Amino acid sequence: MLSFASDYIEGAHPSILDALAKTNLVPQPGYGEDEYCRRAAEKIRAACRAPDADVFFISGGTQTNRIVISAMLGTVDGVLSPATGHINGHEGGAIESTGHKVLALPHRDGKLDAAAVRSYLADFYADREGYPHMVRPGMLYLTHPTEYGTLYAKDELTALRQVAGEYDLPVFLDGARLGYALATPSSDVTLEDLARLTDCFSIGGTKVGALLGEAVVFPRGNAPKHFFTYIKQQGALLAKGRVLGLQFDTLFTDGLYQKIAAGAVRQADRIRAALGELGVPSAVPSPTNQIFPVLSNEDAAALAQEVIYTFWEKADEGHAVIRLCTSWATTDEKVDALIAVLRRILGGR
Amino acid sequence: MLSFASDYIEGAHPSILDALAKTNLVPQPGYGEDEYCRRAAEKIRAACRAPDADVFFISGGTQTNRIVISAMLGTVDGVLSPATGHINGHEGGAIESTGHKVLALPHRDGKLDAAAVRSYLADFYADREGYPHMVRPGMLYLTHPTEYGTLYAKDELTALRQVAGEYDLPVFLDGARLGYALATPSSDVTLEDLARLTDCFSIGGTKVGALLGEAVVFPRGNAPKHFFTYIKQQGALLAKGRVLGLQFDTLFTDGLYQKIAAGAVRQADRIRAALGELGVPSAVPSPTNQIFPVLSNEDAAALAQEVIYTFWEKADEGHAVIRLCTSWATTDEKVDALIAVLRRILGGR
Amino acid sequence: MLSFASDYIEGAHPSILDALAKTNLVPQPGYGEDEYCRRAAEKIRAACRAPDADVFFISGGTQTNRIVISAMLGTVDGVLSPATGHINGHEGGAIESTGHKVLALPHRDGKLDAAAVRSYLADFYADREGYPHMVRPGMLYLTHPTEYGTLYAKDELTALRQVAGEYDLPVFLDGARLGYALATPSSDVTLEDLARLTDCFSIGGTKVGALLGEAVVFPRGNAPKHFFTYIKQQGALLAKGRVLGLQFDTLFTDGLYQKIAAGAVRQADRIRAALGELGVPSAVPSPTNQIFPVLSNEDAAALAQEVIYTFWEKADEGHAVIRLCTSWATTDEKVDALIAVLRRILGGR
Amino acid sequence: MLSFASDYIEGAHPSILDALAKTNLVPQPGYGEDEYCRRAAEKIRAACRAPDADVFFISGGTQTNRIVISAMLGTVDGVLSPATGHINGHEGGAIESTGHKVLALPHRDGKLDAAAVRSYLADFYADREGYPHMVRPGMLYLTHPTEYGTLYAKDELTALRQVAGEYDLPVFLDGARLGYALATPSSDVTLEDLARLTDCFSIGGTKVGALLGEAVVFPRGNAPKHFFTYIKQQGALLAKGRVLGLQFDTLFTDGLYQKIAAGAVRQADRIRAALGELGVPSAVPSPTNQIFPVLSNEDAAALAQEVIYTFWEKADEGHAVIRLCTSWATTDEKVDALIAVLRRILGGR
Repeated sequence: MLSFASDYIEGAHPSILDALAKTNLVPQPGYGEDEYCRRAAEKIRAACRAPDADVFFISGGTQTNRIVISAMLGTVDGVLSPATGHINGHEGGAIESTGHKVLALPHRDGKLDAAAVRSYLADFYADREGYPHMVRPGMLYLTHPTEYGTLYAKDELTALRQVAGEYDLPVFLDGARLGYALATPSSDVTLEDLARLTDCFSIGGTKVGALLGEAVVFPRGNAPKHFFTYIKQQGALLAKGRVLGLQFDTLFTDGLYQKIAAGAVRQADRIRAALGELGVPSAVPSPTNQIFPVLSNEDAAALAQEVIYTFWEKADEGHAVIRLCTSWATTDEKVDALIAVLRRILGGR
Repeated sequence: MLSFASDYIEGAHPSILDALAKTNLVPQPGYGEDEYCRRAAEKIRAACRAPDADVFFISGGTQTNRIVISAMLGTVDGVLSPATGHINGHEGGAIESTGHKVLALPHRDGKLDAAAVRSYLADFYADREGYPHMVRPGMLYLTHPTEYGTLYAKDELTALRQVAGEYDLPVFLDGARLGYALATPSSDVTLEDLARLTDCFSIGGTKVGALLGEAVVFPRGNAPKHFFTYIKQQGALLAKGRVLGLQFDTLFTDGLYQKIAAGAVRQADRIRAALGELGVPSAVPSPTNQIFPVLSNEDAAALAQEVIYTFWEKADEGHAVIRLCTSWATTDEKVDALIAVLRRILGGR
Repeated sequence: MLSFASDYIEGAHPSILDALAKTNLVPQPGYGEDEYCRRAAEKIRAACRAPDADVFFISGGTQTNRIVISAMLGTVDGVLSPATGHINGHEGGAIESTGHKVLALPHRDGKLDAAAVRSYLADFYADREGYPHMVRPGMLYLTHPTEYGTLYAKDELTALRQVAGEYDLPVFLDGARLGYALATPSSDVTLEDLARLTDCFSIGGTKVGALLGEAVVFPRGNAPKHFFTYIKQQGALLAKGRVLGLQFDTLFTDGLYQKIAAGAVRQADRIRAALGELGVPSAVPSPTNQIFPVLSNEDAAALAQEVIYTFWEKADEGHAVIRLCTSWATTDEKVDALIAVLRRILGGR
Repeated sequence: MLSFASDYIEGAHPSILDALAKTNLVPQPGYGEDEYCRRAAEKIRAACRAPDADVFFISGGTQTNRIVISAMLGTVDGVLSPATGHINGHEGGAIESTGHKVLALPHRDGKLDAAAVRSYLADFYADREGYPHMVRPGMLYLTHPTEYGTLYAKDELTALRQVAGEYDLPVFLDGARLGYALATPSSDVTLEDLARLTDCFSIGGTKVGALLGEAVVFPRGNAPKHFFTYIKQQGALLAKGRVLGLQFDTLFTDGLYQKIAAGAVRQADRIRAALGELGVPSAVPSPTNQIFPVLSNEDAAALAQEVIYTFWEKADEGHAVIRLCTSWATTDEKVDALIAVLRRILGGR
């Protein structure tokens, strides 16, 4: 059956498997001290034009959020997040398990607004020192793309950075699907911008062609003290760190990371165009590799007979928001087949 | 340069890379719901003759210890461990980071003795309810092989199980290198024994031929409630769970797991024989894939010019304990070369 | 200056100081094993008609919430709370510091509605096992009186108990100001009802005439295992536990606890009546010892010259909600004086 | 029955009860903002000649250790403690519950030796950055008096301070019974020395005449950032902070704190002298208010018929170490009576 369920239903981009095979017998030290990690970090620094950046590799996205956020927060701090932020709803309480509160703020299509952040902070600091019986806002968490596939524009990020700076809050940007953001033609945000406008960001591998792995970038060499030991303590240090290093080395060679993502966005655009022609509304204006059509419950049920997708949420009693997702492995043929099904089911409405 | 530094200096056994390549494009659900995880669990249940076992896959050994132990302990419980236990010294305080104390007990060559455990527990329960201002001993942690490569005999495990049972303590056996234990000719402990004599044990993949991954077995379907969500919360759930499942599926097909380990132990036996002929003492009587010769500081320095090994600890002012380690990738040729070097350096002493 | 800032601005009810003086030289064992704790627990069991209740004494309200909730929750559980619940906003992230998320629900005047709770739970359990990537709702937290001084009616509590029971959730009722609830003439909820309708509740001493201290009641002998040691571990076990025991022994002798509260509610009623005559609106319909008048910013400023009160929140640009609070130490004279000031300032509006 | 079980079997020194009674109706702000806390802090600063000191009041000793240590440690740090340190054995795992390991070092009569600390640190830093898979030693914890009633000499403290400084470790001294140290004639360590030689120390009230309460002193204004909020988050902030402030205000007026302790030490000296005359050996050379005679099991049993004492530990099969403790409430008559009993039971041996 056709599956557009997510961007992690297949294995890895073939170049990664090739690289694993080629280097398999080369002895390397463990725990991230191997030459592939070193090389991958070098390439990421270059791509971000951040020569002083600290770069670490961690196995998954929740792991990354959990470790980065708890390492950057002070003891009595919480993290400001859009209410829809991945850390607030879909990580099983990972942040709270480290002892910190997620301070959920209103969002628009998954995005925070600088004015809303400023208003929250102004209230907290109405008393000059901040209200001492409440959780202190200790950092700003953003996702890019968001959980709804939407993107910040550069001036939106700049405004958020500005307000965070006024209140001395570091900014962490969760880039679990960052490749798709970078590869979206209408987006004006580059890796270099992220290195300038955040204090830490992650570059997701798992959902952009790797078997597993996220790169964590502290762009100004500003990793928390003893961050390596913290990764170890939290159980996230792989003995064969080479597995992560080699994948990012491959992804950041000859622009593979963005090529993979660009292909997926192009296929998503084709699906979006077909849905548009069929008059299917979109729940959110996502320009990346995730698409959120609103279908009648009947159409959704009919589609489920032929295509694996993700049920996202109820739109109203009669309609559902579903999610279709493309990836490095989404071929023209698969998309043609999907569009044919969509036309057949939705064409006669 | 020759490297016997550890059993994780190379990539994965070639069968694993093959399996990854062959299944790369097969769409699978995420988060461990894929068919490879299901199949691997089935094969592990069969190998353990534990048809009701709960089986989970986690990326690394410290991660596994951290999650399993904290999930099995009650709020005020600590974990009894040999002082040399991996959790006590080499995991960056991973257990304590979950809020629990490691209660370190005296060891012999890395092993706990049932009598020492009983004496500790009898003291704690001198007051029938246990002393309420102290950390309660809540479970028993063992490693097999130990950090020194030594093994429990079946009657030693049985005795530990017995005393743990008397005090209602579950037993968790950390098998980060379990394959080498199972493949050691002189050992009488089988997977089936472990399923019977423990409440949980891990089957290490990372150090026995996998890229990464440990299987966690609760042999009587006795996984802690909501253990899956706990893995997620702790950041240890891989989106592409297939990567773990497929590796264990491969390792538990046609006895590959034990074959890999048996080869490594055989090569270690050759090195041990050569060291014996050279009259080099061993710091501990390890029969598995780790060897701990005691060398003079001069010999150790000379050896370091030609072979990468691990410095283990100072034996005395003039001598060092070093560790040599074999793996699935240790060939006859590599061992021949090592033995030649050893004879050259140590032969004339 | 007149102060109606809170119910903890004075020391203790004189009977408590007398009891401390009288027993001062009587040797007693430490850590809550003294005879006063035993006697206080006996009297509380009798007052609740809960002969099997486990009763503990803890120094403060946040301490109590933190310890009780974290002891009752499972590892991956969060606590359902009205968004205005004390644990969600005013305890510095105490619950999260124990690793658990506060799942904030909409409220009305500080109260949860059974229908809203049922709707949340039905959504979570749409998938029969509950959504495994999300925090599990693990218990229900209520305050009575609420942070707004409002009270649950017995049928409201019964409905909440019903829905909690359907989903196997324990109910914990935070009674930091419980005395005022019990002493409010219009309330139909008794200690006996609480023992029947909750799995745990606290009886606040600090804000009802004690120097410090809260009693925690597990009405069916259902205290979490090793709760005593958990109190110790969390640093909340007083060496001179007698100080807590003696105070509750005194408060639960001859109905002193309710007498103290009844006096305060009566004084609050006098103030409410005066405000009503003056046409001052109330932000919430609190019938207990807290009063929340809405004043123009000018009137609020004028009042602040003569009376210490608590600024509660902005009502709109021109108006403020303030809080006035009575206690065991609020005399007729003090209230007369306050009413005179209120009439002078607000009379001519 | 005569009780020498501990120094917390009675209530508070009468001056404290008087002060509570006298100030009972004076309205004061809550949460430590009252004038008694302010005054007590001022007097403590003066007594320590530490005009910039930050002073906080916390309800109990374990609470204090738990909060101070976890606030001062970095994320991956552990605390160096003598193996007999209160935090290592008798606080129910309080430190570990905050995520940090207690790194237990060998002791002599409860005391750490600067050379042993230096040796541990030199090993850890054999690799210049410290071994990154292990818990980092992050601070030094001492008790004074120790759990065995023994005291550091000023030059011992100076040596410990020196080695800690070399490795950039803060020193925290747990003074749960500090008064008795200050009042011991043979001791050369003053409050002023502690302010100079530590980064934080506590001044115990509970065991030196208060109902409850410990003062925490950061002598150079070096309290961890947002320490007040951390106290709140950990549940240790009393609403009626006045109760703590007033007690320390009283204890630090006219030298009451040391007077109380001096009386207790004098009575302990009388008991020590009597035991000496009777030829009873002492398990440790404690010069403070705790005495640790070694009795035959028969004598211990006979004594238990007439005097309440604490069983400390088994000395050998035939002998027990017991503890006798004096306090502010130990009168000449009580000690006369005890000595008479001791002579009767032990005299004819």
